Amino acid sequence: MSRTAIILLSGGLDSATVLGIASREGYECYAMTINYHQRHNAELKAANRIAKFFNVKEHKIIDIDLSWLKSSSLTNQSMTIPEIASEGIPSTYVPARNTIMMTLALAWAETIGSQNIFIGVNAVDYSGYPDCRPEYIASFQTMANLATKSAIEGKNIQIHTPLIHLSKSEIIHEGEKCGIDYSSTVSCYQATSDGLACGKCDSCRLRKEGFKQANIEDPTQYVAPQ
Amino acid sequence: MSRTAIILLSGGLDSATVLGIASREGYECYAMTINYHQRHNAELKAANRIAKFFNVKEHKIIDIDLSWLKSSSLTNQSMTIPEIASEGIPSTYVPARNTIMMTLALAWAETIGSQNIFIGVNAVDYSGYPDCRPEYIASFQTMANLATKSAIEGKNIQIHTPLIHLSKSEIIHEGEKCGIDYSSTVSCYQATSDGLACGKCDSCRLRKEGFKQANIEDPTQYVAPQ
Repeated sequence: MSRTAIILLSGGLDSATVLGIASREGYECYAMTINYHQRHNAELKAANRIAKFFNVKEHKIIDIDLSWLKSSSLTNQSMTIPEIASEGIPSTYVPARNTIMMTLALAWAETIGSQNIFIGVNAVDYSGYPDCRPEYIASFQTMANLATKSAIEGKNIQIHTPLIHLSKSEIIHEGEKCGIDYSSTVSCYQATSDGLACGKCDSCRLRKEGFKQANIEDPTQYVAPQ
Repeated sequence: MSRTAIILLSGGLDSATVLGIASREGYECYAMTINYHQRHNAELKAANRIAKFFNVKEHKIIDIDLSWLKSSSLTNQSMTIPEIASEGIPSTYVPARNTIMMTLALAWAETIGSQNIFIGVNAVDYSGYPDCRPEYIASFQTMANLATKSAIEGKNIQIHTPLIHLSKSEIIHEGEKCGIDYSSTVSCYQATSDGLACGKCDSCRLRKEGFKQANIEDPTQYVAPQ
């Protein structure tokens, strides 16, 4: 029996690449997407496309309304997405988002008897979110090893973060090797419902720069010529 | 300004007591209840009654369907609730439940600027769930201190577990001091929609024994005379 893995799949460039890597490594992949009523819900359609492309065993979409997290511009639509790089952690930070997502993946992994969770966190070309850092991931792993019945039975569930130390251009090169068509992914924080990117937000800036550094033509569909 | 706290309030005996303790300690209390489509959803009505009794600042009910956690008899209604004490962790264990709940509380705490979360876990008269043990709570605390923007800014969010080392009878004595009417709480894993308890499941057995040890008349409303 092949090894199984849960892949957290937002529909963006990073998580698509992680799914590609896990597939290439021979895991039987179960994709999990969290519909947290985020502003940029075009990424949910992107997640569907990518899950189909990689022919995942199952694609589970969890609905949890987090629009009550009023401090984040991703969940509070009356706030504005910043279009200029700023000092510190930007308003797009969603409180405890990666912990919520990895915990739901942990619950699913335990239920289906999988011992692997993949997440596309990155601590190089990123927005400074605390829950993308290696020390945070390590602490989640320690917690997970105490939280579950699986762990007590000696079957720890491992968190895999294959992108954590890669630059955006290295991530793109990895994804190209996996055959990913990045035009089908959505990274923009304020993408239109058709998935057109603004080209101005932090996520767009990091992505554009990644294609430039990778010396690969940027296939992203923007609302206006860049 | 008074200190604020998030109280995870299921509607059972333990969480009601925790809310009583936090109120008595002078916290301005925000109650959070998770509707995870649990079998015993009469506890949600109980949570409403208790939140009203303690006049909480806000009572947030989060809806997240976890019925896909097929390994637990609390979320998979085709399974039977065990009525005989068994070896090991019983089928009522819900994968990662306390981690899911504490993480949602963490997100809310950060959003409203609270630095306190209370949860009624207990490692004395309990069902052996891994996510009730002190070492698990400590590891969640370490993780939380790395996960959030609050923590980076030097404002850690503290997890309070005032019941963790108390026996059920000691918990009941605490609650009595806080004025709790335990007949309005629901602990039974297979309570009727009116909140009548079976008297046979693990949760009922621990609760009944607690009243007996506390030498206090059991006010629980059962489906049949005990």
